[in-house]
Formats: sequence, structure tokens, C-alpha cells
Amino acid sequence: MTDLLSADELERRLRAVGAERYHHLHPYQLRLQSGGCSRFEVEAWALNRYLYQACIPQKDAIILSRMEDPALRRAWRQRIVDHDGEREGDGGIARWLKLTDDLGLDRGAVVSGRLALPATKFAVNAYLTFVRERSLLEAVASSLTELFSPQIIKTRVAGMLEHYDFVTPETLAYFAARPAQAGRDSDFALAYVKQHATTRAEQEAVVAALEWKCDMLWAMLDALEHAYVHAAPAPGAYRKLDAASFGKAA
Amino acid sequence: MTDLLSADELERRLRAVGAERYHHLHPYQLRLQSGGCSRFEVEAWALNRYLYQACIPQKDAIILSRMEDPALRRAWRQRIVDHDGEREGDGGIARWLKLTDDLGLDRGAVVSGRLALPATKFAVNAYLTFVRERSLLEAVASSLTELFSPQIIKTRVAGMLEHYDFVTPETLAYFAARPAQAGRDSDFALAYVKQHATTRAEQEAVVAALEWKCDMLWAMLDALEHAYVHAAPAPGAYRKLDAASFGKAA
Repeated sequence: MTDLLSADELERRLRAVGAERYHHLHPYQLRLQSGGCSRFEVEAWALNRYLYQACIPQKDAIILSRMEDPALRRAWRQRIVDHDGEREGDGGIARWLKLTDDLGLDRGAVVSGRLALPATKFAVNAYLTFVRERSLLEAVASSLTELFSPQIIKTRVAGMLEHYDFVTPETLAYFAARPAQAGRDSDFALAYVKQHATTRAEQEAVVAALEWKCDMLWAMLDALEHAYVHAAPAPGAYRKLDAASFGKAA
Repeated sequence: MTDLLSADELERRLRAVGAERYHHLHPYQLRLQSGGCSRFEVEAWALNRYLYQACIPQKDAIILSRMEDPALRRAWRQRIVDHDGEREGDGGIARWLKLTDDLGLDRGAVVSGRLALPATKFAVNAYLTFVRERSLLEAVASSLTELFSPQIIKTRVAGMLEHYDFVTPETLAYFAARPAQAGRDSDFALAYVKQHATTRAEQEAVVAALEWKCDMLWAMLDALEHAYVHAAPAPGAYRKLDAASFGKAA
């Protein structure tokens, strides 16, 4: 249990985490991609997930601020550019707003986060705290869910286009850009953790960081499932009354 | 004392801080630019100041991580690019290493910081803590020393080229790039604080943040002056013995 894993063994451990704990297995994701969600449930998903998208450049800037090597910073800063874009209307956050716009959600309400579930906000906040307070190695490792995102994006996009007539390829522009970016970023982060986890304890911390991140993504879907499938949204969170007030059929 | 200042009055207050407290008035700076420093004292200045240069992208990434507006982040992130460059050997940090290389300082020793004065390290650390813990407004305001840097750079470069035969324009390449960048950045930061300091208390906090930053730059030169002019460097800090070990005349 204390022997150093080979780089290949570490990668196998990390990929096993994804196979078991990534949110591609979550019931809400399965509903979303199979046409089982109502339009309202798709809206709630997009509205809540916006807060996660919006925090990513802040998360990456925290990681950047902890890197002492300019070469490492040069590689990592591209993530911030990908999400914030080169100009107004460009980048991942703007493309996520294209999704929420097309779903008829009020942009001001989305950006403010005021209709999001408290559990979504707590999860996002926990992510920022994690990358600020854990080791740089663990902060980098927590990004490794991108190893698994190209596959879930492919399944999600195909499923949403097939099952929801209110979704077009333009609506889902966010997802078109991500797989190539995620592939490049996860290659870099995987090489980094293989190189910099030089003790078994550090390797276990890397695995645990990826588990933590999977749990955080899972918790966001749990909150959606509780609020919109099994029970009811917390007071103040998005409900059909809000949808109606945005001028759409509720 | 509680009336809101006009934007112009606030700018006058900020410029007055520079006139009174910026390190263009510090005796070590005056010695440096007038040929009063020995080569060894120039080396000690460059070696210590490297730690300040090296912290700047980390400082700016902390500020970036605290900005919630993608448009604001797009403007601010250029500062990180300016210092880290587009590739190995490019950017402000690499240009500062050109200066320390040309002075014959061992690059590994410079980058490690192991020969820098403890007071230099404390000042740099205090700067990172300041931008992390104070308000975003104060963090932005602390960058406003760049309002004054083009003038000190002009004086410093002219003086060093005139008085030190071991300094060439190539040695000072760092300073050639900075005035235009500093002008752009300080215009942006000045407009930001004028717009976002909306109470007199916030305006006073902006002024105090700039005073704090001037004090921090001043303290770095005080430490150099104490160690290398009036007294002696702290144990472990750069001394002529180190210069000799780098293969230069001590």
C-alpha cells in the first residue's frame, strides 16, 4: 500500500475513478441525454450549471496564482482564455449563455445566480476553496475530470439533439468547442500529476482529488434531482412560476 | 472629510501620493541612477528586485481570480501575458533575468531567491497577501504605482547607461517594454477605481492602498540600503563572496 505506483498504474487508477464516479452515471444526466427531462428540467440544469461554468476562470486563476514556474503558467492560462474568450460574446461562458438564452431564460437572472439552488452555489464555492487550500498537485488533479468530459459531451449532445425539439446545434455551441480543449488540458494535467506525484502518499492524494471533483459534480446533479424530480426546489430557487415570468409557456 | 471626491479630485490625491511616497525619491534609487552604486550594489538590487518581478503574474492571477466579470478579466489577464511572455525567454520575467545574467549573477541562485534579503521576501509576500485579503478595489488600486513607473524607468535607464560601463541597452531590455504596458495598465486601473470607489470611505481606501504599495516598494530599497550601504546583509544574503563564486571579480 506504500509502494510507489508506476505512471501507468496511476493513470489506470485515475481512469477507474472516472468509470465509477463521474457524473455520466448520474440519473439526472441519464434522463437529460435520453429525452426523459421536461423542458423545465433542462432549463433548471442549464441555469444551475451556469454557476459552475462561470467559476472556471476564477478557479484557474487561483491555480495560476499558485504556480511559480512561468512555463507552467503559460500553459495553464489558456484555460482562462478558453472560458472568457478574446472579446465580448466569445468563450465558454458566453457560449453557455447562448444555451440559457435559447432556452428562454432571462440572462440577468442566470448571471446573478439568484434562481440557482443553494446546493449548486455551495458546490461551486467548495471547488474554489479546494483549489485555494489544497496542494497545487491536488488542485491540478481536480481538473482531471476533463479526461472523461469528451465522452459525456458526445452522448449528451447526441441525445439532446435527438430528443428535444427546442435544442439546436447552435444552442449547444458550448459543447462543440470543449472536447478538443478538454483533451489538450487533460493531457497536460495528467502528465503533470504523473511527474509531480513522487510519493505514494502524493499519488493517493491525486486520486482522492479526482474523486472529490467527481463527487462535487455528482452533488450538483443530486441537488437538481432532489429539487426537480423527487421533491421541490428550495425557497427562492427556479420554479415554473419563474419560467412563466420570462414570457414562456410554463 | 466625508464628502465624495470628484473623479478628478481622487486622481489628484493619487498622483500626490506618488509625488511624495514613490520610490523615485529613495536614496538607493538616487544612487543607482546617478552612478553612485558600486557594481556589487547594482547586482544586489537586481537580484533582490527579481523576486518582486517574479511575483507579479501570481499577484495578477490572484486579482484575476477575484474578478467576477469576464470583460474585466479579459483586460486584466494581459498583465500576466506581459510578464510570463508567449514562450520561453519572452516576457518581463525573462527580460529581468537578462539583466541579472548580464551582471554575471548565477541564474539558478537568482531564481531560487536564496541570496535575497529576508526583508525583500517579506515585502513580496505581503503584496500577495494584500491583493488576496483586501477588497478587490484596494487590490486594483495597489497597482497604481504604474502611474509613476514610466518616469522612474526613463530616469533610471538614462542614468545607468551613462554611469555604468557594464550596462548596455540590451541589458536593460526589461525597461524598454514596460512604459507602454504600464501606461495602458494604469489608465485602466485608474478608470476602474474612479468608477468603483463610490463612497468617500472607498476613495480613502483606494488612496491608502496606493500608499501601502509605495511603502512596500520603499521598504525593499530600505532593506538594500541597510544591508549594502550602511550596515551588512543578513546571514545568507548576497555578499561579495557570492559574487566571487560566480566567477566575477568580487
